[in-house]
Amino acid sequence: MTADRLARLALSRLAEPGNLRMTALVAELGAERLYAELVAGRDPRGTRTDLAERLAGIEPERDLERAAALGMRWVVPGDTEWPSALDDLDDVEPLQRMGRAPLGIWVRGPLRLDELPAAVAIVGSRSSTTYGTDVAAELAAGVSRAGSAVISGAAFGIDQASHRGALAAGGPTVAVLACGVDRAYPAAHHRLLDHLAEHGAVVSELAPGCAPTRLRFLARNRIIAALSRGTVVVEAAIRSGALNTANWSLRLNRPVMGVPGPVTSAPSEGVHRLIRSGAATLVTQAEEVLEMTGRVGDHLPELPQAPSTARDRLTRRQQQVLEAVPLVRPAGPDSVARTAGIGAAEVTATLDGLRRQGLVERLPTGWRLADDEVGG
Amino acid sequence: MTADRLARLALSRLAEPGNLRMTALVAELGAERLYAELVAGRDPRGTRTDLAERLAGIEPERDLERAAALGMRWVVPGDTEWPSALDDLDDVEPLQRMGRAPLGIWVRGPLRLDELPAAVAIVGSRSSTTYGTDVAAELAAGVSRAGSAVISGAAFGIDQASHRGALAAGGPTVAVLACGVDRAYPAAHHRLLDHLAEHGAVVSELAPGCAPTRLRFLARNRIIAALSRGTVVVEAAIRSGALNTANWSLRLNRPVMGVPGPVTSAPSEGVHRLIRSGAATLVTQAEEVLEMTGRVGDHLPELPQAPSTARDRLTRRQQQVLEAVPLVRPAGPDSVARTAGIGAAEVTATLDGLRRQGLVERLPTGWRLADDEVGG
Repeated sequence: MTADRLARLALSRLAEPGNLRMTALVAELGAERLYAELVAGRDPRGTRTDLAERLAGIEPERDLERAAALGMRWVVPGDTEWPSALDDLDDVEPLQRMGRAPLGIWVRGPLRLDELPAAVAIVGSRSSTTYGTDVAAELAAGVSRAGSAVISGAAFGIDQASHRGALAAGGPTVAVLACGVDRAYPAAHHRLLDHLAEHGAVVSELAPGCAPTRLRFLARNRIIAALSRGTVVVEAAIRSGALNTANWSLRLNRPVMGVPGPVTSAPSEGVHRLIRSGAATLVTQAEEVLEMTGRVGDHLPELPQAPSTARDRLTRRQQQVLEAVPLVRPAGPDSVARTAGIGAAEVTATLDGLRRQGLVERLPTGWRLADDEVGG
Repeated sequence: MTADRLARLALSRLAEPGNLRMTALVAELGAERLYAELVAGRDPRGTRTDLAERLAGIEPERDLERAAALGMRWVVPGDTEWPSALDDLDDVEPLQRMGRAPLGIWVRGPLRLDELPAAVAIVGSRSSTTYGTDVAAELAAGVSRAGSAVISGAAFGIDQASHRGALAAGGPTVAVLACGVDRAYPAAHHRLLDHLAEHGAVVSELAPGCAPTRLRFLARNRIIAALSRGTVVVEAAIRSGALNTANWSLRLNRPVMGVPGPVTSAPSEGVHRLIRSGAATLVTQAEEVLEMTGRVGDHLPELPQAPSTARDRLTRRQQQVLEAVPLVRPAGPDSVARTAGIGAAEVTATLDGLRRQGLVERLPTGWRLADDEVGG
């Protein structure tokens, strides 16, 4: 097991995350044998001129030791902590020539990856609005209060707000990085990441010290999607990386949800497109998210029912009379009786009852609807 | 034909709009015979004690004359102006014990009801926000510019904004009332309605002089839905009358569309619910509305494509190199070459080309991505 662990670490340093050739070779030969053959100078499926040089620079034992000293662990398939949800990546089509489960995953923090309760990814734009960050924090707090973990990146905007909301609710939260878990990108989030490493988890498939690249962000998104039961996109412009995460979620057959916003707001454009296309379900609150990501029956959302009004409790006869009362120009009881098709005496008694309930008013010239009962 | 026209007018005064018993009797006996029998004192299917008295007060000839003098016309089935779209109401299930095509329809204004080009209903809350009225006016203007008529009520808020937008674009617009077309409800919209009667049309199934009631608003909504190819709901709280119009549109098998808004805004709650339930399609602009209501192929919407960037025009080799360039900490060309798996000389030349395109920058310590190219 240790040999496999070390081989996976070394191989993860040889190829970019999500590299299909590498994962295919590991699947075919096993990590241990592949690494051994490469070290022995036998490039089993082709040649890369600088391979020997690169292998020489890789010392997985030293990597592991140094990482352990800094509180980082390398979790690989077969470990009890390995989140089996990541294996689902092996069954989905690659995206932008990337895919498959990572060779292993680095973790910094007390949260165990095999114990992420019904995790929800909340992702979105770095260039978010105040509306977007408020909603993201509120959603994350709601999801947390229900006991679900929140998963996001570590960018400005929606990512940051999601962690903030989860932390405020005292819930578990996970940042997935496109660089080593010992690095802070953006640098301004150094403290946020340290805090997450103390109270939640910071994870990455990239070895400590690795720098972020655009490709690594795209590969990282598949980890966010795979660790979660569903992905909520809060604000995303047309070309946002959050839409890439949503795409991974769809490939994994997990629900994608979108929080709408003003149609005049560019950061909501990508979300509206997701909803229009049918790829995402519109959500407005944490209950609706939990409904789609929780175990069935776990979280029955409270539907926003219209408040029950005096009008709802009327008898059929009262309704008939009420519907015959004019909105503006008052009418005498005879006129109301004619419109309602009911006798005048009964109408007068009914009108009096309706007045006591505040539904109609009596003016010197007759009866009309009370002001706030006018329809529109 | 004149006898039928007069009979329909008289009968329309005898029953509330959408009264199922009246329309069933007209369908069975014809308006002329039904009216004749009622006048002759033979109540053909039951008795209403005050019927004789009410019939005595109805003078359809005088109604028609007075209305004509005031520029109002009574359009009935068989007239060339009769909009056949209203007949579709005869094929749908009643809602709240109302339904069916009206016995006739009053029109005030130059617009002919048989010439409403691909009309779109734009409806929503009276208690709208500035966001809602801005979007409604913008949508109505866009729909108008494409040559489609706008149909709405005459309430404050979204109704008013829709007419305003259509008028600003010089397009045809129609207000459907829950009272006589000679009345203004709300009174503050007296001028708006006069303006519509000069440039568009004000219509109602209620005879001149009739007052609005809540029931009449509900019946009115089916006319708005039936005259339109589809209904757009801009803002609607959970108990908004606009949702009733949407319901009629669904019954008529015509598309319902909803404009989203902030999830923190109560006037958007009803719209979000419509979209979540699948009853409405999310729309953000007039092109998307026209796509759903126009003739097929008429209005291919311009999809909001992400603008093409320098990155989109790169060769495969340039992309490989670019993806190996770090985001923050600069790397020398050798390091980039190793990550990319490409020879150092070629990498140096490629990096220089990428720099000229503004995608990477050269610092004293090496290369890194240009600031605005960092993913997230």
